[in-house]
Order: sequence, then structure tokens, then C-alpha cells
Amino acid sequence: MTALPETAPAGLIKPVLPRGLADRVASEIAATRRMIDIIGRVYELYGFCAVETPLIEYTEALGKFLPDTDRPNAGVFSFKDDDQQWLSLRYDLTAPLARHFAAQATSLPKPYRSWRAGYVFRNEKPGAGRFRQFMQCDADTIGAGGVAADAEICMMAADTLEALGVPRGHYIVKVNNRKVLDDVLDAAGLGGDAPRRLIALRAIDKFDRLGAAGVQQLLGAGRRDESGDFTKGVGLDAPGQKILLDFLDGKLPDGLVSAGLDELAAIRELLEAGGYGADRVRIDMSVVRGLEYYTGPVFEAELTFEIPGENGKPVRFGAVGGGGRYDGLVGRFQAETVPATGFSIGVSRLYAALKALGSPVVASAGPARPVLVLVMDRDHLAHYQGLVAALRRAQVAAELYLGSGGMNAQLKYADRRGAPCAVIQGSNERANGQVVIKDLVLGATLGGATKDRADYLELKQMAQFAVAESEMVGAVRTVLSRQAVGAKS
Amino acid sequence: MTALPETAPAGLIKPVLPRGLADRVASEIAATRRMIDIIGRVYELYGFCAVETPLIEYTEALGKFLPDTDRPNAGVFSFKDDDQQWLSLRYDLTAPLARHFAAQATSLPKPYRSWRAGYVFRNEKPGAGRFRQFMQCDADTIGAGGVAADAEICMMAADTLEALGVPRGHYIVKVNNRKVLDDVLDAAGLGGDAPRRLIALRAIDKFDRLGAAGVQQLLGAGRRDESGDFTKGVGLDAPGQKILLDFLDGKLPDGLVSAGLDELAAIRELLEAGGYGADRVRIDMSVVRGLEYYTGPVFEAELTFEIPGENGKPVRFGAVGGGGRYDGLVGRFQAETVPATGFSIGVSRLYAALKALGSPVVASAGPARPVLVLVMDRDHLAHYQGLVAALRRAQVAAELYLGSGGMNAQLKYADRRGAPCAVIQGSNERANGQVVIKDLVLGATLGGATKDRADYLELKQMAQFAVAESEMVGAVRTVLSRQAVGAKS
Repeated sequence: MTALPETAPAGLIKPVLPRGLADRVASEIAATRRMIDIIGRVYELYGFCAVETPLIEYTEALGKFLPDTDRPNAGVFSFKDDDQQWLSLRYDLTAPLARHFAAQATSLPKPYRSWRAGYVFRNEKPGAGRFRQFMQCDADTIGAGGVAADAEICMMAADTLEALGVPRGHYIVKVNNRKVLDDVLDAAGLGGDAPRRLIALRAIDKFDRLGAAGVQQLLGAGRRDESGDFTKGVGLDAPGQKILLDFLDGKLPDGLVSAGLDELAAIRELLEAGGYGADRVRIDMSVVRGLEYYTGPVFEAELTFEIPGENGKPVRFGAVGGGGRYDGLVGRFQAETVPATGFSIGVSRLYAALKALGSPVVASAGPARPVLVLVMDRDHLAHYQGLVAALRRAQVAAELYLGSGGMNAQLKYADRRGAPCAVIQGSNERANGQVVIKDLVLGATLGGATKDRADYLELKQMAQFAVAESEMVGAVRTVLSRQAVGAKS
Repeated sequence: MTALPETAPAGLIKPVLPRGLADRVASEIAATRRMIDIIGRVYELYGFCAVETPLIEYTEALGKFLPDTDRPNAGVFSFKDDDQQWLSLRYDLTAPLARHFAAQATSLPKPYRSWRAGYVFRNEKPGAGRFRQFMQCDADTIGAGGVAADAEICMMAADTLEALGVPRGHYIVKVNNRKVLDDVLDAAGLGGDAPRRLIALRAIDKFDRLGAAGVQQLLGAGRRDESGDFTKGVGLDAPGQKILLDFLDGKLPDGLVSAGLDELAAIRELLEAGGYGADRVRIDMSVVRGLEYYTGPVFEAELTFEIPGENGKPVRFGAVGGGGRYDGLVGRFQAETVPATGFSIGVSRLYAALKALGSPVVASAGPARPVLVLVMDRDHLAHYQGLVAALRRAQVAAELYLGSGGMNAQLKYADRRGAPCAVIQGSNERANGQVVIKDLVLGATLGGATKDRADYLELKQMAQFAVAESEMVGAVRTVLSRQAVGAKS
């Protein structure tokens, strides 16, 4: 009475995942749990409390604040509810938090510090290291307009990286302020011209990729790329171009007055007072994050150690998180403006970084290695089941062989599972009320272990020996602790 | 330069969630993490290893194996990929596992024991306690055809419930076998008549709700419900009806021969050998789970203690998990049949049960209670920041007040956050290099604490006292440990 497969047997369904999605194995799952535990502990030390929102929201409630402004209508997985309203999978953890805060405003303490970890989804072309489902871990402070909230988040980001095993000197949290950039755009002659400002921002954001010459073309008449495609430029005059290029080179326009600069100075003072020097958190004017999202200070957590790049040349690991002030997001739901600031960690990317660094937080304990109880005689399955249950009751991870193979297949399975030892009971042993314990680690090394015959025999005796059933658990424990000592030495 | 809200200011967006979705607060998040940790530890003791699949799959790969057979095309959130292929949010963790196994078949050990926790989605009408996003925690054995795999999963379910704090006697794992029901349907005269069998199965599945009389109508000519709607029946003759009703009453047809009965006997033997008596795992013919899914043994984990029902009358808590053998699911992807069996826990429902039971696993530690450093003079914000940083460096959870309120508002915020104490530094204290520590717990009880004037003054001195800045961390720790002792006594 099984349901019929929907495809006829001839047309088997392909067991494939849509691109940009991936299965996760035990080592990554365990490491991710440890990472989130550690991140959460640091966040809670700062007074942030955990809160989670569902993965689905009304499309309208999420808004369109994706970083990819070239495709404003793409980027999100959306579908209609049965009442014809559009729903979307969240594309970040910030937009849903703004909705949560607006919904719960009266019952939450203000300012409201909170944190959360969860999957987000991007309906984008996936690429190397770019997935359509990935995990973020965010912290946000809503209802605090002063830069103390921003400074605090930068300190917390630094503490978090160190708690995860990134040594001081291997990371830097960079701080900039969108207001400075806005004022520089004014100085360059783009005051009040929203469409051309946006084109200029996009050009500036490409500095890393195109360099000064490419950005200059985009700020001027335009740029033709290698494929021959032409991107129309901002049409700025030469002095205007120079102001922006100087800015990218770290030089501010002469006599620039900007509230952003004052805010950065205040942040610096708070960081110093907290004991966070420029070796951990640093003002850096080159940071341009999220063109459509941020309204004040912006942050980027960068790992500064090098890994082999695509062409084998070492490259900086780069950003693993970022954030900033987004004073406009909650205001979409309620009349008054609600200031907010936050920080988001890309968990999968940070996981890769911690592995590259050899952080103990993500060190794999290796696969679980349960003891295998062999099934030598299927008529006595229940008896073997009793042996397995006794091991489990003693908190020893153990398996009963559940396949249909013979002794060789069973030992091969044990090998595949990395079983530390096998428990074997044939008819002779059963008649004597005994089991044989086979140490699979010692057994595998026996061949080349020693040339001395007496030693060899002693080792052989250790590698496989019979004990009374009642002593099985103790004997297995002896083998396990012997292996634990061996693994350390 | 914030992006404009998509809705004009006049038309503010409503901060609401689609129905059947909910935000989760800190206590539930922390309890769920602890539950998954404990469940995972039990599963790994049994040799099951963690593996996770993404939340999105090809619709075709998931198939339509939802329990709600009345709406075969509903139940799933689906959307088209940019190459026009249909994608769906997973509705359980089993169909994606079958896809994973088929994709990785050559690299996995066989039999393959694995476990996972994650959200699943149902595009159904939500109701009381029925959500459209909820968490499941599953364990499955793929590639083992014998009932030892089924028996093992039942034992593991029992161990899991006990590890989570459900005392023996407060739960029961029930086992049945779909093959018995199939053979009873044959005996009732429905052999080979697939459409009528399906209607009969649906009728049987309604036994809990409609009772024997209602099911008999559905097995016969049909049934008219209170609203006047008529459901056509199976059209079984009276002897056939009696066979099925007797079965629901625990009586098998005379002389019934069924492989299902032999399997149940074998499971019983394995359970006994493992030390699992009928007080923990019990054969129970009344279990009818998942009409379209299972091919052999089926399991249901039920909590037997009572909670107040809708009308105030106590009712059994009921099922918190279930599963069974599904030998057909992997076969959708590959030519050979791959036997499989598994068990799924409804995590949110189990969370509610553990709360009702008072299990320590889900006991709320209460909200995090950070120490609050007040901002008495905004010109010295950086100095206050230094005090907060010193507390955090000492691993004392602490907050700087980030709002714009005065002293009263700040103390009210501290109260709201459950702050154990406040650190206050006005201009006088600053001049003396001191801070005032205000014990907010002791302070709140001062009024009615004692009638003795000397005691009162001593308590008052304990509730609020000045110390040198350099002794702040130690003084705060004294207050925190004093409160910890007070909370326990």
C-alpha cells in the first residue's frame, strides 16, 4: 500500500539539489553549533538577548533592501499565499527584526538589544562560495540613536572573533560613516542629484575590482569593459572626479565639515575608553557597504591573514561580517523614526576562515566511532541486541550490524565507520558464555609493529581476546581508553 | 541616502506575520538548543551521525507523501526557479534524506544511520498549535531491511524521552505493523481493490474522532456529518465491517496469517533482549499512521500524563513523535529497492510537553540579567563605556544605558531588564574616583524587610554603597553572588 512513485519506474527521478544549495555533514554541523554557542555567549555578555523570526514573511514587510541594486526585483524567493498575498523567504535577518520590533514595540525594553542565528535565502546566480541558502548570525540595537551603540557593536565583533579563536592581529574591525561619503559627494558637486549619486556610489563600490582608473572612467563619461559592454558614467567634471578619487585614496576634501567625521571621532573615543585600540577596531574611509541600507556608521570585520588564492598567490581572507546603522528600516512600519544599528556574521564563510586558521572551535572530532557488535548467527539476533543495549546503557556508543553481509562485509563496515573495536560471538563463544573483543586500531597496525616474536604475540593477544559476557563492557572500555592514550601520544 | 520605503509614509506597512508563523523568544530558543543537544547525544550513542539537507528541494525530488491525502496538491510551498523548474520548501525531513542517500549512495556506509533537526513547512490551514513552520528532529536507518532496525528505533525513542526528563511510566512507544492492517483489509473482502482500500484506511484513521459508530457508517453506505455534508462510504458488507471494527477493538480475524504479526513478534523479542519492557515499548494494533507512506512497522511515541483539555477536563498529552518503515521512498531515485525506517520528533510539541512536565531541560533560566551602567552625564560617555568594558572583560554581563532617558527612565529600564544591580557615577563620585553600586533586588525588598532600625540601616547600606572604581568589578561580583544565594534559599 505504498504510494506509487509519481514517475514511472523507467523515468527515475534524479537525486539532485537545485544549484546553490548543499547538504551539510556532521563535522560542519557540530562546528556550526559550537560557533553559534560561542557567539551567543559573547553577545549575551553584552546584554543582547536571543530572539528568532520565521523564515517566511510577507514580501511587503521585508521590502527590497538587497545589496544587488542592479536587479531590484530579483534576489528573493517569493510565492503567493492562498489568499493571494505575496510571501517571501527572508533574504537577511534585519528586515524581519524590524518587523518584529514594530509588532512588539510596546512590550520590549528600549533600547532593545537582540541577537539571532538562522538561514537566509538569495535567489541569485550562485557561484564559487556563493550559496542560495546560507547562515547568518546577527546582533542589533534598536532605539539607540547615539554612536555608543555603534561603538559597542564594533567592540563586540572584535571580542567575538577572538572568542572563536582568531588571534589578535589576524583580524581588524573597520569603521566608516556613510555621512562622510554623502558629504564628499556633495563636495564633488552631486548635492541633491539622487540618480547620479547612486551611479557614483556604485562606481565607488567597484574600487576593489576596477582600481582607480576604472572608477575614474565610471565617474566620468563611462567605461567599456573587456567584453565590449559600455556602462554610462556619472559625467562628473575633473575636479569632482579628483575629490572622489582622493577620498578613495584616504584624503578628504579641504575644509570638509561633516557630522560623520564628528561621529567617527566620538566612536574612536569610546573604543579607546573600552580598551579597543586601532589594532582591533580602526576608522577606515575605504569601507563602502550596502548602498541602499545604511544611514550612518558602517562596519566591516576583516580577517587579515592570507590563504592561497585562485591562482595560487596568497590573498587576504577578507570580510566575514559587517553592518551599520539603518535608521530608516523600522520607520516603514510606524510613524516615528526609530534608530537602529546592527552587525551580521556570515557563519559559513567564518567557518571556512576558522578552519584555515586551525581554530580549535571548528576542529573536527572526527566521525563518531561506535563499537560494532557483529551478527554471526541470525537466529540469535535478539541476544546480540542485548549486548548492544548493555554497551549503550553504559554510555558506550555502539551499533548492531543491521545489514545482510557476512563476517568480511561486517568488518569492512566496521572499518568504514571507524569502529574502535568489534564484539564477536560465534557458536563456540556462545557455548562458553563469552565474547571476543577485536581491537580494530591495534589489529590494523599489528603487521609492522614489532619484529620480536614475544612482543608480537603479546600485541596479538591484546588485539583480539575473549572475555566473559558479563565483562564485555569493562573490556570494551579498556580498549577505548587504550586507544585514547595512543591517539594522544 | 536611505532607500525610500516602498509604501508612501501615509500607507505604513503593517508589521504582521502571515498566519501560522510565529516569532520565538529567548527561553524557547535556549530550551530547543538544549533539547536538540540531548536528543543528538542519545542518537549518537546509537551510532547515528548528523547530516543536514537544505530547506529547498526540487518539487519532484520531494514527491507528494503528505499525510493529508484529501488535498494531494496542497500542503507544500512551491515556486519556480529562474529555469522554470519547480522548487518546494521541504515538508518533512524524510523525503530530502531519501534524495541525499540516493545522491551519496556510493560514499555512505550501508546500512546508513543518520539524524538531523530542522524546520519543515506545511502550506495548510493553521490552527491552535498547528503551525506552517515547525521543527522536527529525525533519525533514520537506510539499507537495513530487518526488523532489528525498527526495534532499535523504538528503543532509541524511549531512551530519548527519558533523557529529556520524561519519567518512565509517563510515556509509551507504541508499535504496530501496516502489513497486519493490510491483511485484515484482505480478510474483510477488500483484497486488490486499491481505491476502496484507501477509503477504508481513511475511515479507520478517523476512529479517534468519530468512534466505532462513525467509522461503521464510513465503512458501509456513508456518513452525513453535523453540517449536513455526506461522505460516501466503502460499501462493505456487515461481516467485512465487523472484521474491521473488531480489529479496531483489538481483536484479529480468526486464523489470520500475516507476516506483519511475525515481524511484531520478532520486534517484541528484540525489545525484551534489549531490556525494554512493555512499560516502555508496546505492541498496539490501534496505531494507524501516515496512510501513504509506510510499508511495515509503524511507531508512535505518546505521552500518557494528562493536561487540562479545551473544556478544562484533563486529557492525555498524546503523540509527540512517530515513524515507521518506508521501503519505497529511496526507490524513486534508483532502480533497486532500498529498505528504510525512521522516527520523527515534533520538537515544538515536545517542548510544550516538557514544560507541562516541569522537565529541567526546558526550565527557563529567566531572561539574561546584565548589570546596567547608568549614564549620569553624557559628556563622560566614554568613561562609562570604560566601566562597562571592565565588567565584560571580567565575564560579567553588562550594559551601558544607550537610550536618551534621565535617571528615572534608566532605573525603569534596569527593572525591565531584570538587572541585578546598577553602577552609578555622578559628578561627586567621579571627583572621588568612586562608583555607587545599587543592588536592585535587595533595594526592591527593603521596605518590608525588617522592623528593626539597626537591621534596616545595615540592609540599606548593603543595597547601595560606594566603592573605588578599581574595586567595582569585585563589588558587583559580591552583589551577584549574594543574590544567587538568596535565589536558592
